[in-house]
Amino acid sequence: MDHALPTLADVKAAADRIAPLAVRTPLLSSPDLDERAGGRILLKAETFQRTGTFKFRGACNFIRLIPAERRPAGVVAWSSGNHAQGVAAAAALHGVEATIVMPDDAPAPKRAGTERYGATVIGYDRTTESREEIGRAIAAETGATVVPPFDHPWTIAGQGTVGLEMAEQTAAAGHVLDAVLVPCSGGGLVSGVAIGLSGSHAQAEVYAVEPADCDDTARSLAAGERVANPPDADSICDALLVPIPGEVTFEIMRSRLAGALTVSDAETLRAMRYAFETLKVVLEPGGAVALATVLAGRFAAAGRTVGVVLSGGNVDPGTFARAIG
Amino acid sequence: MDHALPTLADVKAAADRIAPLAVRTPLLSSPDLDERAGGRILLKAETFQRTGTFKFRGACNFIRLIPAERRPAGVVAWSSGNHAQGVAAAAALHGVEATIVMPDDAPAPKRAGTERYGATVIGYDRTTESREEIGRAIAAETGATVVPPFDHPWTIAGQGTVGLEMAEQTAAAGHVLDAVLVPCSGGGLVSGVAIGLSGSHAQAEVYAVEPADCDDTARSLAAGERVANPPDADSICDALLVPIPGEVTFEIMRSRLAGALTVSDAETLRAMRYAFETLKVVLEPGGAVALATVLAGRFAAAGRTVGVVLSGGNVDPGTFARAIG
Repeated sequence: MDHALPTLADVKAAADRIAPLAVRTPLLSSPDLDERAGGRILLKAETFQRTGTFKFRGACNFIRLIPAERRPAGVVAWSSGNHAQGVAAAAALHGVEATIVMPDDAPAPKRAGTERYGATVIGYDRTTESREEIGRAIAAETGATVVPPFDHPWTIAGQGTVGLEMAEQTAAAGHVLDAVLVPCSGGGLVSGVAIGLSGSHAQAEVYAVEPADCDDTARSLAAGERVANPPDADSICDALLVPIPGEVTFEIMRSRLAGALTVSDAETLRAMRYAFETLKVVLEPGGAVALATVLAGRFAAAGRTVGVVLSGGNVDPGTFARAIG
Repeated sequence: MDHALPTLADVKAAADRIAPLAVRTPLLSSPDLDERAGGRILLKAETFQRTGTFKFRGACNFIRLIPAERRPAGVVAWSSGNHAQGVAAAAALHGVEATIVMPDDAPAPKRAGTERYGATVIGYDRTTESREEIGRAIAAETGATVVPPFDHPWTIAGQGTVGLEMAEQTAAAGHVLDAVLVPCSGGGLVSGVAIGLSGSHAQAEVYAVEPADCDDTARSLAAGERVANPPDADSICDALLVPIPGEVTFEIMRSRLAGALTVSDAETLRAMRYAFETLKVVLEPGGAVALATVLAGRFAAAGRTVGVVLSGGNVDPGTFARAIG
């Protein structure tokens, strides 16, 4: 591994670093959800973060840590859409040029959002090309700094501020988290959240939640080593299609997580509908998987205080209409 | 008038009374919205209240004030849907039977929501029958207590807790509200909010916001007396179709409001779409009108700190899909 693992001190430093720009998102509760679950569910609504997902946190922390002399060459990133928007928005706020490599089949609002922040978007074919190769070639040519979507301590520390805030907000409300459920793809968010919680909530069980057919984290944890999804693995959760856990994130996850859970796409769609009908929060599929585990009874929340990260809400109107219809 | 006007002390008492059951909804902010408006916009998200709208507050306060000996006879209310759900939910939590008179063309989720809380729903034809007559006949027959949707000091004091919380949350964030924009139909919410703000935010300008074709409050304030909408007045804002301001609410509005604003249905639909795309909050048409005034430039928010009440999110999937599509 190239990097030392990020620590709670890194997450706290990231929190101070991004505080002027990131939204301190609310911790919501719903009497209806509590009744259904038979426990106390606290929802960390990263849907209300800049760009509609938690990704802004990691991107902002990373970009602020790029040495001043390297910033004029810009940044480059690859992403199915949410990291793209996070990097584009964070770069724009710091006067840094951003180039984003996005799949041609990314949801339209994610591409539009990325371009709206002034980034240059370069498309690629998700089935035949490597976004990482394209991105690294651009970086080599232009001197731009690569902003990794998850497998870097600076990115992880930024995402970890979600966990730190959950710990602070839960304590302020007079509660203690027994468990925390976090949507997972490359593992940047869940590993960061586990670190962010490790100060005041060291006892809290942290679970990664994945789509059933993209359960590389669950299988990697079981195997004790990084295992990839089959090449044809797919899910409606376009934000959760990374094929294998990161190296840094896996080291953190294997030592800090209580486990990994999975949900079917049908359960995820039902969670999106529930969020529309009852919570009044717009969730994208990947942002709904942790909520889905509670609603589908795949995690026993009864009698416990459970944090659930609603990680994003960037969904195109057609997909959303189908989910709620 | 039958009633003394509610006071700030009444609103504070209501806040204590409903605190065990009502959600203290968050005050959201959005960097994107602030940029568009050129000011600081603070969104009071009553969408996250029990039953999806502020109506639970007034209903809960009212029902808790019904003398114990009258509760066994139950309560009765009439409503296009949101007051219905508020009363049904509050009644259920207090073990009181509720009968609700609702128009046959009320949005399906509002009727379903009302029945889900165990209330008995009685339909009527909005164009030929009087819901108030039907409701009062039931009350006379059964001895049930009428829970008025807006024109009663107990109801108004309950809705006023929205204003009280906005004042507290804004102060806690280190800001001061220059103006507050509130969706308005019968006037219970906006008159309550004006009273709730009158302690720490006596200088804040409070505006009622109405659909352009249902601007009875605007015309009543201009005329200095209660003026009704024409019988054929209509709007997509099904929650804002009360034909004339209440007597109690008008007395409060004429003395406390800075004015009334209107928005077109098209502007309201655009605000719903913006809330979906950027805020990630589900709004019903009537819940979006105050936000619409800011987005449509009908209220000059530049350089000011402006509170905007997102009053409700009970919208059927078909209407929502059309708004965001």
